[in-house]
Amino acid sequence: MRIDFDLAVKRLLQNDEIVILTHANPDGDTIGSGFALMHALKSLGKKAAVLNSDGFAEKYSYITDAPCQKDFEEKFVVSVDVADSKLLGKELEEKYGASVDLSIDHHATNRLFAKETYLEPQSASACEIVFEIICAMNVQINREIANCLFTGVSTDTGCFRYSNVTPRTHTIASKLIECGANHAMINEKMFETKKLCVLELQQRCIEQKELLFGGKVCLFVITKKISEETGCEESDYDAIVALSRQIEGVVVGITLKEKSDGSFKASVRSGEGFDASAFCSAFGGGGHVRASGCSFDCSLEEAKDAIKRELEKTFC
Amino acid sequence: MRIDFDLAVKRLLQNDEIVILTHANPDGDTIGSGFALMHALKSLGKKAAVLNSDGFAEKYSYITDAPCQKDFEEKFVVSVDVADSKLLGKELEEKYGASVDLSIDHHATNRLFAKETYLEPQSASACEIVFEIICAMNVQINREIANCLFTGVSTDTGCFRYSNVTPRTHTIASKLIECGANHAMINEKMFETKKLCVLELQQRCIEQKELLFGGKVCLFVITKKISEETGCEESDYDAIVALSRQIEGVVVGITLKEKSDGSFKASVRSGEGFDASAFCSAFGGGGHVRASGCSFDCSLEEAKDAIKRELEKTFC
Repeated sequence: MRIDFDLAVKRLLQNDEIVILTHANPDGDTIGSGFALMHALKSLGKKAAVLNSDGFAEKYSYITDAPCQKDFEEKFVVSVDVADSKLLGKELEEKYGASVDLSIDHHATNRLFAKETYLEPQSASACEIVFEIICAMNVQINREIANCLFTGVSTDTGCFRYSNVTPRTHTIASKLIECGANHAMINEKMFETKKLCVLELQQRCIEQKELLFGGKVCLFVITKKISEETGCEESDYDAIVALSRQIEGVVVGITLKEKSDGSFKASVRSGEGFDASAFCSAFGGGGHVRASGCSFDCSLEEAKDAIKRELEKTFC
Repeated sequence: MRIDFDLAVKRLLQNDEIVILTHANPDGDTIGSGFALMHALKSLGKKAAVLNSDGFAEKYSYITDAPCQKDFEEKFVVSVDVADSKLLGKELEEKYGASVDLSIDHHATNRLFAKETYLEPQSASACEIVFEIICAMNVQINREIANCLFTGVSTDTGCFRYSNVTPRTHTIASKLIECGANHAMINEKMFETKKLCVLELQQRCIEQKELLFGGKVCLFVITKKISEETGCEESDYDAIVALSRQIEGVVVGITLKEKSDGSFKASVRSGEGFDASAFCSAFGGGGHVRASGCSFDCSLEEAKDAIKRELEKTFC
């Protein structure tokens, strides 16, 4: 059941012994909103702890090094930035998947798996929502909370770059910096550091790229051999998929990645005038207008041929 | 002579037939602040035009396509984002270098070359200052002015990433989006589009990089041959120089670029704990703690040897 803002705040104020669940493969927004909420609840004298199925990456240590011991029996379960109980990951889904009391989220796709859900689909990040909740709980935002919240506000907008940014996003960022958020440190950690393996993967992709239809389409192929040689993790491929479309003049970027069974996964990114979702649905896939995906259970050459034939409908 | 904010606003209000000078190799901040000021002055019934020695790059056309005819004899000369009359470029320096009435700027290094200067060195961009000035002139910020100002606010902070961002930067960004700034379009044009020549140059640099002192120092070399083969413009090298320091684990990034006479220019970027300015001063150069430069009038191998010997003082 969806509830309104005031009731969500009331639920947090009237409960104690609270566990806060974050999603698997945790990102800056789920970590930032989880720890910010924990600090706020603790400052009200409550017991609270953040849980995760996978553990946190080193680069978030300035948030996750905070004391976060679950030394109590939980009486209230909150999830932040989690659209579906499946996204809690194996460990937390088994233990809490069916008993989340309150879901605080900004995904329009939220499955309403919790008893009560406070959802703001127009919010660029869960941290924006948690900022408003913490203010409504009359908790003073200190430097620690500001660092948590700024992390989600910044990472979920690609450092204020994406179209999901609203005037509120910048207003909250301004207040968080006033409250002591170390924005320069956070942005450097999140955006300025490039992994060597990603740069090497990028180099291989650019070296072997195919520019089709007068440069309007860019095709990257990441074979198993390239994956192994560069040693990138799954999350590292996002930057490459984005790059396929960022090259000057390119309208459609397609990244074909070979899976362990030899089939290929296509990630399609598009600019104005090309519906990536419609394109992918021709191959049984789908997604959003600007970002979609599909699979090819055939050889690389056959996949490329099929892609080119489908593209010809638009570009010839 | 430095003047205060109120007097700067008064000078603009009491004058007419105003030319606005922007700096050579114009960037988003000088273009954005210049055109925003022009629109504001015109909306007050004044004649105004923006001038530049070099012309504007295509990517700024959403700003520079606005009617901007100098069909009047100027009676008042303003410069925006110009720290020194030399930076006006040959054409504008010859014509106006000695007769600028009012300089509006945010560079701490402003040479006070104008009759009167309104300087806010703590401002992240000239556009932040022009925003305040336009508000003080009681001009309504429409979509057109908002797009101009957002461009400078965003580009001079690397899309809100750099340490020069203040709470005011985000507050102004919020107001500009409310006034209709097309932030997503602007950020995509300024930050999401990558020139193929830059990607190819990047590929060559990564391929041939030297990681020294256990990966703490990264050395890129751009020979004349590489420059010619990739066909990059001078302004394209900034991204490569930045990249030299962004690689995970790297504290000092050094880019050696061969000049037409065969000598080498070194651009040094550093993180915490290494003073790039002190390093470069050992070779007769200088700059800022995190970004400095120097020259080497010797062979590439001799330059590298000298650099390594100087680095050993810190890293051995």
